[in-house]
Amino acid sequence: MTSTPSDGELTLDPGDADGWDAFRGLAHRMVDDMIGHLSTLREQPAWREMPSAVRSSFGDDAPRAGIGAAAAYERFVRDVLPYPNGNLHPRFFGWVQGNGTPLGMMAEMLAAGLDAHLAGFNQAPALVEHQVLRWLAGLLGMPGASGLLVSGGTMASTLGLAVARFAKARELGIDTRVDGMQRWPDGPAHGPLVFYGSRETHGWARKAAELLGIGDRGFRRVPVDSEYRVDVAALSAMLAEDRAAGLIPFCVIGTAGTVNTGASDDLAALADLCARERLWFHVDGAFGALAYLSDALRPQVAGLARADSLGFDLHKWGYLPFECACVLVRDPAVHRDAFATTASYLAETRRGVIAGGLPFADRGIELTRGFKALKAWMSLQADGLDKLVALIEQNVAQTRHLVARVQASDELELLAPAPLNVACFRFAPRGVPEKDLNPLNEEILLQLQERGIAVPSGTTLGGRFAIRVANTNHRARREDLDALVDGVLAIGRELSGAP
Amino acid sequence: MTSTPSDGELTLDPGDADGWDAFRGLAHRMVDDMIGHLSTLREQPAWREMPSAVRSSFGDDAPRAGIGAAAAYERFVRDVLPYPNGNLHPRFFGWVQGNGTPLGMMAEMLAAGLDAHLAGFNQAPALVEHQVLRWLAGLLGMPGASGLLVSGGTMASTLGLAVARFAKARELGIDTRVDGMQRWPDGPAHGPLVFYGSRETHGWARKAAELLGIGDRGFRRVPVDSEYRVDVAALSAMLAEDRAAGLIPFCVIGTAGTVNTGASDDLAALADLCARERLWFHVDGAFGALAYLSDALRPQVAGLARADSLGFDLHKWGYLPFECACVLVRDPAVHRDAFATTASYLAETRRGVIAGGLPFADRGIELTRGFKALKAWMSLQADGLDKLVALIEQNVAQTRHLVARVQASDELELLAPAPLNVACFRFAPRGVPEKDLNPLNEEILLQLQERGIAVPSGTTLGGRFAIRVANTNHRARREDLDALVDGVLAIGRELSGAP
Repeated sequence: MTSTPSDGELTLDPGDADGWDAFRGLAHRMVDDMIGHLSTLREQPAWREMPSAVRSSFGDDAPRAGIGAAAAYERFVRDVLPYPNGNLHPRFFGWVQGNGTPLGMMAEMLAAGLDAHLAGFNQAPALVEHQVLRWLAGLLGMPGASGLLVSGGTMASTLGLAVARFAKARELGIDTRVDGMQRWPDGPAHGPLVFYGSRETHGWARKAAELLGIGDRGFRRVPVDSEYRVDVAALSAMLAEDRAAGLIPFCVIGTAGTVNTGASDDLAALADLCARERLWFHVDGAFGALAYLSDALRPQVAGLARADSLGFDLHKWGYLPFECACVLVRDPAVHRDAFATTASYLAETRRGVIAGGLPFADRGIELTRGFKALKAWMSLQADGLDKLVALIEQNVAQTRHLVARVQASDELELLAPAPLNVACFRFAPRGVPEKDLNPLNEEILLQLQERGIAVPSGTTLGGRFAIRVANTNHRARREDLDALVDGVLAIGRELSGAP
Repeated sequence: MTSTPSDGELTLDPGDADGWDAFRGLAHRMVDDMIGHLSTLREQPAWREMPSAVRSSFGDDAPRAGIGAAAAYERFVRDVLPYPNGNLHPRFFGWVQGNGTPLGMMAEMLAAGLDAHLAGFNQAPALVEHQVLRWLAGLLGMPGASGLLVSGGTMASTLGLAVARFAKARELGIDTRVDGMQRWPDGPAHGPLVFYGSRETHGWARKAAELLGIGDRGFRRVPVDSEYRVDVAALSAMLAEDRAAGLIPFCVIGTAGTVNTGASDDLAALADLCARERLWFHVDGAFGALAYLSDALRPQVAGLARADSLGFDLHKWGYLPFECACVLVRDPAVHRDAFATTASYLAETRRGVIAGGLPFADRGIELTRGFKALKAWMSLQADGLDKLVALIEQNVAQTRHLVARVQASDELELLAPAPLNVACFRFAPRGVPEKDLNPLNEEILLQLQERGIAVPSGTTLGGRFAIRVANTNHRARREDLDALVDGVLAIGRELSGAP
C-alpha cells in the first residue's frame, strides 16, 4: 500500500501503476470472496461460536509497522468473516436487523470510494439524499416533509422527539434552544415537559428522554390492551392527571410494529387525540412504517401518515445494509428551526463548493455524515418499489405460515397475536409443568443457535418465555420457517423427554 | 437482481448461478471504475460544478418497476461520480474532511457485506471494535478507557458531554437520567448546569448544549488570546462569577486543533484547573488529537491525555473514509452508568448469539450501529502506526511550506499563527485598499474552486476574510500547495489589476 512519490512524500494510495494493479487484484479477490460468502449462506450454519483461539487473537497490540493490505485482509478472512452474528443468513429471525443485499454492499463501496461529506454542499451526493428523502416522504403519505438519513431508529426517533420538544415548547413561549430544559434564575418558571408512549415502546424512548434532558420520569408509560396496543383511554386519563399535577405534555409516541409482537397502536386514534389535545404526534415505525407501502398491510398502520414526525429504518424492512434510517418531519420550517445554526454563514456562499448550503446539518445534530443515501437510491432504482412491497408481503405471509404451523401443533403454543411479521411461541407439550417451560424454552432457543439451525430470539410475555421470530429476511423461504419449527420440536422433545 | 426460487418466493439476492455471475461481473466493473477514478484524481479538476441538466435529473419519482442493478449503476456513473465535493482530490484543503483511502473503501464493502449489527453480540465484529478502541485508548494516553465509534466529532463530543453531565450531577446528588435537566414539583431544586469552552470551540458545542437540554446559555464562551487559545484566567473568573450567580459549572472543553486556525488550548493548564475546580475535562480533538501520536507534535496537545473524555475522528487526520469517529471515557464504569439500560436483560444470556452482551449500546445513544471499526482495524494493520505518524507530520511540514511561501511574498499576508496543519492567509498586495480585500479574497476563493485548481475554504478572522487551508490530505504534495499559492496569486493579480 505504500508509495513514495518522486519527491519522497508519502500517500495512502497504492502509488505507481504496479501498486494500483496489485491493489486492483486484491480488491477483486475481496469482491469474489464476499460474493462467494453471500451466495453460499444457505449451506453454512445459521451461526457459529467463535473458537477461543480466534477470540484471543484480538488481544494483539496496534502494529508500528504495517503488514500490507493483503495480509490485513487475510486476517479478516481467517478471524472475522466466519464469525458474524448470523443476520445475513436465510434462517436469521432473531431481531429486526435486516440482512443486507449484494447491491447494497457494492453501493457502500461506491459511497466509501466517493467519501462524500453529507452536511450538504454543492455536489451530486446531496441531490441523491434530497431525492431519496422526497421519495420516502411521498411514499409514506407525508409529501413535502423534511427529512434526514441517520444511523438507526433510535437516532431517527430521538431527532423527531427533539423537534417535538422544541416546537411544542415554543408554542408555550419557552425557547428550549436557549434555556434548555433548565430553570434559570432569571428565566420563566414552568412545569416539566413530558411525553407518552405505551409500555411496549422500544427502548429508544427511554434513551432519548435521558439524552434530551427530559429525564426518564418525563417518559410516561401507558398500559396496553390484550393485543399489546396502547390503551388510548388510559392515555387520555394520564394526560388529564398529569396536567392537573402541573406537568406539560408535549408529545405522544405511536408505534407501528412493536419489537415484542409486531403490534401497531391505533395510530388514527392517537392522531385524533393529539389534534384534540394539541400534542405533537411522533410515530416510531422502525420496521412497521414500511407496511404502509402495501395496500394489503396499510390498514394495520393507518394514521401513520398523520404523524408530525416519523422515524423508520431502511436497514430493517427495507433490506439495505446498516446504517440507513430516516426521520421525516411534516413541517420543514419547524424541522429547520429546531436545529439550524448556520444561517448567516450560508448567505455568503452562493457559488462554489458549498453553494448548496448545509441543509442536512440544519436538520439534526451531526455535521459529518456519510453517504447513506446511495444504497437506497441505487436499490430503489434497481429493484423498484413493487418488488420491495412484494417482499414485505412475502415476509408477512411466511410469518402467517409459521403461525399456522404453531397453531396446528399440540406441542406448540402461540403467545401473542402476530398481526405482522413477528410471532412469539413456545414449546409446551402436555405433561411439562408450567414452571419448567421457561427454562426449557430458553434452552431450546440457545441450542437452535448453537447448532446453527436458525437464529430466533427470546422475549418474555406475561411471564412466559417466548421464542420470537422477527421476519424481515428477504432470503427466507417458507422452508426456512419450517426448519425452525422442526428444530424447536426436535430439541424440545429431546430435552423434555417427550415422545 | 431478481430471482425466483423454485417455490415462487422472491429474494434480493441475484438468485441462480447465472445471476450471481452477472452480479460478480458488475461488481468487478464497479471496483475497476472506482480504482480508475481514484488513481486519476490528480489529472481531474479539484472540483466541477454540476451541469443543470444533471441537476434536474434528480427530480424523477421513485420507480415502481426496477431497472436492474446495471442500469442503476450506469446512472451513478453518469450523474453522481463526476460531481463530488472534491475532498478526494490531492488539492482539497477546504475543510478537515479527510480523503478516504482505497483500502478503506474496500473495507467498507467488506463491512457492508458482513452487515454486522454492532450493538454488541457474540461475534467477531464486536471483538474488532473492542480491539480498535483498546488500541486508540492506549495510543492517546488513556489506557483502559472505555470507548465507542460513532459518526463524527459532534456525536463523539456530545456523548462525552452527556457523560460529564451525568457524572458531575451525580456527585451533587442530582440524577439527570431520572429527572433530566428539569425541575419537578417534588424534585430537588438546583441551579442550572453550565459548561465552558473558548469562543473558537467548534459548533458542535452549541448543538450539544441544545440537544442535551442544557440550552445555549448553558454553554459559556470564554475569550481567547492572540493565538486563539482559551484565556485560562478569564475562564477562572467566569467560573467564580457563575458560581456566585447560582449556576453549577460541570465541565470545561479544551480543543486540540481548532477549526479556524489549528490552535490548541493549553490543555495541561485546563486539566489543572479542572482538577482544582472539580470539573469534568472534555477534550475536543476532532483532528488535533492525532497529533498526540507524533513525538514532534505531542507538545502542542500535551495535557490531552489527562482528559476525562476525548472526542476525535479517524475520518479526518486518520485518513479513513466517513464515518469513523471515537469517544473515549477514562472511567469505564462512569461511561456505562451514564447510558446502560439493559443490565437485567443481559444476565440471562451467557450463551448463544448475544452472549457478548450489548456493551456498545451501553455506551451511547445508538442501538443500531454499523461496522465502522473494520476499516480502522484493517488500515492500522496494513499501513502501521509509523506510517500514520509520518503522514501527519508530512501534512504539518507541507503547511509550514505554505506558510513560508506566504511569508516570503509581498502580495500575501498570513492572518493567524499556523501551529499545526491549518493556515489562514489572504491576497493583500500594496495598493489594494483594506475595504476591497474581503470581497477580493472571497472572489479568489470561489474562482479557485470553480476553475478546479484547488478547494480551500474561507473564514473571517478579526474582520478579515481569510483563505483557509486545512491540510489533512494524504494525497497532497508540496507541489499541490504551490499550485494553490500560484493560483491565488494569478487570480488575485487578474482581479485586482495588480502587475
